[in-house]
Order: sequence, then structure tokens, then C-alpha cells
Amino acid sequence: MRAGPSQEEVRRHNLGTLLRYVHVHGATSRAELTNRLGLNRSTIGALTADLTTAGLVSEAAPRETGRAGRPSLVVRPESSRVYAYALSIEVDRLRAARVGLGGRILDRRETDRPRGMQVLDAVQPLAEFVRELRAGVPDDDTRHVGTGVAVAGMVRRADGMVRLAPTIGWVEEPVGAALRAELGDVGRLTLGNHADVSALVEHSRGAAAGCDNVIYLFGDVGVGAGIIADGRRVAGHGGYGGEVGHMVVNPYGRECSCGSRGCWETEIGEYALLKHAGRGDRSGREAVLGVVDAAMRGDSQAQFAVRQVGEWLGFGVGNLVNIFNPEAVIFGGTLRDIYLVAAAQIRSRLNAIALPACREHIRLRTPELGNDAALIGAAELAFEHLLEDPLLT
Amino acid sequence: MRAGPSQEEVRRHNLGTLLRYVHVHGATSRAELTNRLGLNRSTIGALTADLTTAGLVSEAAPRETGRAGRPSLVVRPESSRVYAYALSIEVDRLRAARVGLGGRILDRRETDRPRGMQVLDAVQPLAEFVRELRAGVPDDDTRHVGTGVAVAGMVRRADGMVRLAPTIGWVEEPVGAALRAELGDVGRLTLGNHADVSALVEHSRGAAAGCDNVIYLFGDVGVGAGIIADGRRVAGHGGYGGEVGHMVVNPYGRECSCGSRGCWETEIGEYALLKHAGRGDRSGREAVLGVVDAAMRGDSQAQFAVRQVGEWLGFGVGNLVNIFNPEAVIFGGTLRDIYLVAAAQIRSRLNAIALPACREHIRLRTPELGNDAALIGAAELAFEHLLEDPLLT
Repeated sequence: MRAGPSQEEVRRHNLGTLLRYVHVHGATSRAELTNRLGLNRSTIGALTADLTTAGLVSEAAPRETGRAGRPSLVVRPESSRVYAYALSIEVDRLRAARVGLGGRILDRRETDRPRGMQVLDAVQPLAEFVRELRAGVPDDDTRHVGTGVAVAGMVRRADGMVRLAPTIGWVEEPVGAALRAELGDVGRLTLGNHADVSALVEHSRGAAAGCDNVIYLFGDVGVGAGIIADGRRVAGHGGYGGEVGHMVVNPYGRECSCGSRGCWETEIGEYALLKHAGRGDRSGREAVLGVVDAAMRGDSQAQFAVRQVGEWLGFGVGNLVNIFNPEAVIFGGTLRDIYLVAAAQIRSRLNAIALPACREHIRLRTPELGNDAALIGAAELAFEHLLEDPLLT
Repeated sequence: MRAGPSQEEVRRHNLGTLLRYVHVHGATSRAELTNRLGLNRSTIGALTADLTTAGLVSEAAPRETGRAGRPSLVVRPESSRVYAYALSIEVDRLRAARVGLGGRILDRRETDRPRGMQVLDAVQPLAEFVRELRAGVPDDDTRHVGTGVAVAGMVRRADGMVRLAPTIGWVEEPVGAALRAELGDVGRLTLGNHADVSALVEHSRGAAAGCDNVIYLFGDVGVGAGIIADGRRVAGHGGYGGEVGHMVVNPYGRECSCGSRGCWETEIGEYALLKHAGRGDRSGREAVLGVVDAAMRGDSQAQFAVRQVGEWLGFGVGNLVNIFNPEAVIFGGTLRDIYLVAAAQIRSRLNAIALPACREHIRLRTPELGNDAALIGAAELAFEHLLEDPLLT
């Protein structure tokens, strides 16, 4: 419980609200800001002036509107001047980008990550990427606000300790500290879970924009989720919520990398699909796409594999729908490809398990931002401090 | 996204914050309010004066403190003057109470509810209880703020439609409308789910006070949950979140009343326990307690039944812990009794399924407020409007 804010706190809150609006929605006229934010025109003018002085937004006359009268100035985020570094450590890829305010990817690098790679072996190529990105920053007046990192694992936000990342083979690895040591002056460094940050981006500007209750699923070797309830991330006490891949769905199922048995990811992860398809010796996204393609071409064993995984996918989503009553479920990573060929079956299984009231307004979706969601989401971790209080340097 | 509040909005927010504080924590000195709410002494004095004028709190000198100096006045909620009616429709009971601000039960009634009772047959005894409670209200200056109803089912808050209450046998029943028609002038009528409102009360003033991430489980014939994430109820899009009883845990299990198979409540509900104990012809809480007692006295079939249910109870809690990373799990209703005799086994199963980071700070608890949680929680539904804006009449 907290008492109401002072006048100065209100002003700073409003500055953050305005900056966040153009960060998420892009160029917006003063008239629309007045409307959306419920503030009067002179307040919007004063806030915009402050943010312009701080170099965070710019204003310009709009293109010819064809309407009479003085047109409303358009406020846009300074995407090319204000930026964050974004890193993403995934099962098969290492990615890095320079992301401008407004979520615009200005420059990017990526490379394969061999499975089994050790933590320090991932830190060095990422640091090299950041050095390359930095070399490409124009000399003129730019501002770096920090660095965000998305990790395919459970991350302690306070210090960037990766508690468990079974799919990339790390347990209790100080990834944050290793990156800080290697990168040196990259400003404030914030780590987050890959599915969590992707979910927030699909929620703010992607497939679930406008939905307040969202389950974003991401599959590869394992399965993770970023869950949004009433507009906010379900983080849990230590920030480790959303480990739906370790919801046990089949008590009589296979052993999981976590030590338990019959976890959801043992039934819908990459390995289950490839094994059902008789391709248990392969791995990786290309191999998964190979099975999906074969199923579409009529290969009966590949179709069997897709059906098996689709069945368990709908089953687990049904459970989550009963627990969360979401508006949208988004299928990302390899689950996207499986959803695209097994949508009817997934929906049917989901309908059999989920209560009518819990599923009545649900929409099943694929991501709009694809792999970029993790990079843009990692950058959001860095932008968040700026958006909380834009004038704090 | 919303802009910051006006001065008047800040004042009203602060009035609500202060009233909510004494509503939840009881009598509190002005000095402590100053401290807790982060407002200065003169603001606290002005807010208290406004709330006193409105008849919502009273102030008095504290008992002798033994300390030098002028003692700080103590602010307390006007529990005997400001009240709500609270109704609870449960599987085996109908309860009603008059609950004073501060969550104090001033008067109460209850009766058995025969299983299979139709909706209108429940409304009439509840209405009669309210008439009796009303007759007992003192003549002097009292204020009735509304009526709240806890229902063991899925409730649409907007109009009090009970969408599904399989354990009490109702589907799409307009309980809110029926109560309104029968009760007449009981002010604003708000319905909520029994587990949800109980969870909020255990969270604000019971076994999970101070915990921001809580799973409250309630078992009888079925199993429901009220889930708190980051201090707020996980309601979902339509308000139907928390239906953990219909999380399928055993794909090869028994048919459930919802039409699905192997739902958690088919493994841990009343019927599963009684059947395992060879008492499948009985029902109700007394029968459940009979099995628990027999198990404690060494009856081997009863012990088998408790072990079976305990196993599945730990199993499902493990799943929820991976999804929510909670600080506290509370076992209510018949699950309380099972938890008390099977705690070690439940913990062991939970530990086998939940990831270490998700369970590392978890506390397993029984409710502090018992059956009163549903009544106090129902009253909270009515008090909520007052606490949002205390001077709005």
C-alpha cells in the first residue's frame, strides 16, 4: 500500500507514459496523444518539449493531411540516436543487435551455437558482436542506454545468474558476471528469460497487442512460456514462473532432462517429434522443419509424429487455459511450425480439456515478430529503466 | 497506459489507502500510518478527519504507553457501524453473515445444503438469513455498504451469472438475478468465486499475509484455486482463471463431471479418497474426516487412500509451482485434512516434480481463517467499492 504521488512524481510519471506510448506505437500526433493519455494539450506540449530537450523524441509537421487548419505535430521516438544493445543466447543461435528506441533493429549479427558449448565460449562471440556493433555507431550525438540479454533458461534478474538452462546445458552459471567482465563499458546489463521477454514484445506490439491475458509458448529442445495476466508478466517470487515445459502431463512418460518424468517438453519438444518420425538421430530446427514438410507432403510416419505432438500440445494448452483463462495463446519456435500443420487437431484437443467459460474468447496465434521478438525483448530490458523515468540519467 | 492523477484524485486515492490499511490491519496509530503510508503527519491528520466525518473510522487515545510525550492517536475502522452482508454458497453449506468494516463477523447464520438442491431453493434460505441479520442491526447510526456472495463455481462478475458449478450441479444459472429479486434492497450485489475470495483474505490477513505469490487450494467434491501473482488475483480474461481442478494430471484417469478425463479433482477430490478407502457409497466432509481419522488410527485401507490422494496432491502442486513460482501454497477444505496427515509425502512428491529454483522459498500452509475466509472474502467484494473511493456514496 502506498500513498499518492507528489506533483513532481506525477510529471515524471507522465513523461514516462508519453515516451512509452511513442516507443510502443511509433510516430503519434500530439492530438492523438492528448486523446490517448487523457491529458490536455498544453500538458502534452510541455512534456514533449522536455523529452525533445532530453534528445528522446523529435517533432515534425505531418505530411499533407488534406484537411483545413493547422495540423497537429507528430512526435516520434529518436530511434537512430537512442539505442540499446540486445543479446540473445538460444539453443542453436547466438544473436546480437543494436536496437533503437521504438524497437527498431538498427544493426545485427548472429552465429550458430553448437550444442554443448560452454558459457564462456558463448560470451566471447557475443562480446565480439557488441564491439562490431559499437564500431558501426555514427559519430554524432547518440545515446546508449544499456544492454539486455535474453537467455533460454531460468535467470535471476538481480545479478544475471542463470539458475537452470537444461536445453543449453548450463546450471548455476554466472552469465551476467561473465558478460560484464568481457564487455566492460556496456552500461547497465539486465538479463531475462527468452520466452518472458518475447512474450512481452508480442504483447506490446505483436500478435497479442491489445490482449491482457496471454500465454506465449516457445519450443525448441524444451518448452518455455511467457505468461501475461491482466497486462503483467507472471514472474513469481524469484522470477522463475512460466516453466510450463516442466508441467508433468504424462505420469507414465519419459524421463526429462530436469530429473522428473513425463514433463510436457518430453512430449512436444524437438526430440519427441524427431523420435516419432523415426529421425531420433537428428536434431535442430532444420530437422523439425524436415518432419513438418514431410508430413505436408504425405509421409505417413511424419504425419504420425505431428499428430502425436499436436495431441499433447493441445492437451497442455487446455490445462493452461483452465488455469489462466487467456485471450490469446501464441505458438513460437518449433511449436509455430507444428501449430501450422496441426491447428485443427490442437484446437479439438484443447476444446475437449478446457472448460467452455475458460476458452470461449480464446484466439490461437503465431508470433508476428518471429525471432526478432527475443532481440527486441532483450532491448526492452534495457529501455525499461529509461521509460520508468526518462529524465534520470 | 494512463497519465498521472490530479490533486483531487491523489487525495481520494490516499483516503482509500488509509482506510484500506486500517481495514486490513485493524487499529493503527497515526504515527505508524505516517510511517507505513509515506505521508506526512498533517496529511494523515486531514485524511483521518475526513474519514471520521464520513463515519468510517474513529480515533481515540491509546491505552497508557508508559512513554513520555503526547501519545499518537489510534485510528480504527468503524466495524460495528459500517457493514456488509456476506453470503456463501458451498457444496454442503449455506452461510450468511453480517461483516463489519475491518473484516469482523458481527452476526452469522448457516444451514446444511442438501446435494442436488436447485438454485432457487438456495436463494430462499439465504434471503431469510439476510432478513434475520437485518432485524438484528442496532437502530442507531449504521451504514450498509452492499452484499457480497461467494459461490463454489465459475461466476461472471458483471451480472452474477454462475457459468458452471459442477460440484453443486448448476450450469448457467442466474444466481445474481435470483438473489436480487428475492432480497430486494441489499444494495450493490457482487458475486465471486469461493476459492478466489478466500485466497484474497488469506493473502491480506491470513496464512499468506506478506506473500505476493500465493496458491490457495480448496477441496471438497471438486478442487478450486485462488491464485495471487505479484499481489493480484489471476483472474483471466473473463474472470474464470484458477480452475486447477480441471488441469488434467492423469490422461488415463477417470471421467470428470466436466466431461474431460483425468482432471486433478478426479484424483484428489472427495470421491477419490472415499473410493480408495472402500467407502465410495458415502459423501461429505464428515466422511472425508472419517477416512483421515481411520488412517491416523492405523487402518490400512484408509492409509492407502490417503497415500494415493497425497501422491496426486503433491503431483499437481508441483506442476503449479513450476508455472507460478509461489512463496506459499495453502491447503483448504478437505485438502487441509489430507495435508495434515500426508505433509511429508506431499512435499516429497512436490520436490520431485518442481524445479529447485521454482520451489526454493516455498512454504506449505493450512488456512488461518478456515471457513470464515469465504464469508470475510464475500464481504470484501462489497467493501471493495468503498475502499476504492471512500467518500463516494
